[in-house]
Amino acid sequence: MIERFLEDLHVGDRFDSGTFEVTEQGIVDFAENFDPQPFHLDLDAARRSVFRGLAASGWHTAAMSMKLFVTGELQLGGGSIGLGVDALEWPRPVRPGDTLRLQTEIVEVRPSRSKPDRGIIRIRNVTTNQDGEIVQTFLASVLVRRRSAAG
Amino acid sequence: MIERFLEDLHVGDRFDSGTFEVTEQGIVDFAENFDPQPFHLDLDAARRSVFRGLAASGWHTAAMSMKLFVTGELQLGGGSIGLGVDALEWPRPVRPGDTLRLQTEIVEVRPSRSKPDRGIIRIRNVTTNQDGEIVQTFLASVLVRRRSAAG
Repeated sequence: MIERFLEDLHVGDRFDSGTFEVTEQGIVDFAENFDPQPFHLDLDAARRSVFRGLAASGWHTAAMSMKLFVTGELQLGGGSIGLGVDALEWPRPVRPGDTLRLQTEIVEVRPSRSKPDRGIIRIRNVTTNQDGEIVQTFLASVLVRRRSAAG
Repeated sequence: MIERFLEDLHVGDRFDSGTFEVTEQGIVDFAENFDPQPFHLDLDAARRSVFRGLAASGWHTAAMSMKLFVTGELQLGGGSIGLGVDALEWPRPVRPGDTLRLQTEIVEVRPSRSKPDRGIIRIRNVTTNQDGEIVQTFLASVLVRRRSAAG
């Protein structure tokens, strides 16, 4: 994998990811730890809920998408340090058996005014399932080092 | 716990939570599953990083905060179904040994125009550590049922 720095990144650049296989056990484990609501924990209760079947917690989808980002094509020198997230949405539930994939697009590249060794990129992250349906979108601001500072 | 519906909720209402004890093992487990970066996984690597010590993934902080929300004072009839999140920020790292707590404030209450059985509330969720320092903030839109629809 190529490590990329601020100088290497341009608006419109797109990056792909590997895949994440969603399991029933994974959905239930996450829910037990962090989002213990019936529609994330129990098949029968989930069938009777607005989700009409077991669905991953939105925060689980966010976490799985982070795994895809960190292990994906866009490897940032110094790591991926998120400063903030906007417009995080889950337009469709994530189900057991789904295969998730992440597409990242750079929408802004901004060198820091005060700190010459770094900058901030703004990215749009879109998570899709095996049918190409969008299950999550968000915009994130990420700290990126300059190559010249990597020394 | 009282179940609350749209009619029960008003702008300015505030709700408290229990506490979440952050452990080194919890930070590392989450990171291995979802955010395998050195500063979330390894004490020595973390000391040499911008975090200057082991820090929880921001998505782990989000997940722990969801646990505090779901088990907290504001219990929504029909469950907590998030529609979207804005202005998610992590102003300060979460460390092993931290004790997290969540405060929720209602900033908007909006009945649905098309569906008389529900509405949307907008909430500000603020997660603090044992010193009262803010470690996460965000705004969320949450689906809420009307009492009259609860049968």
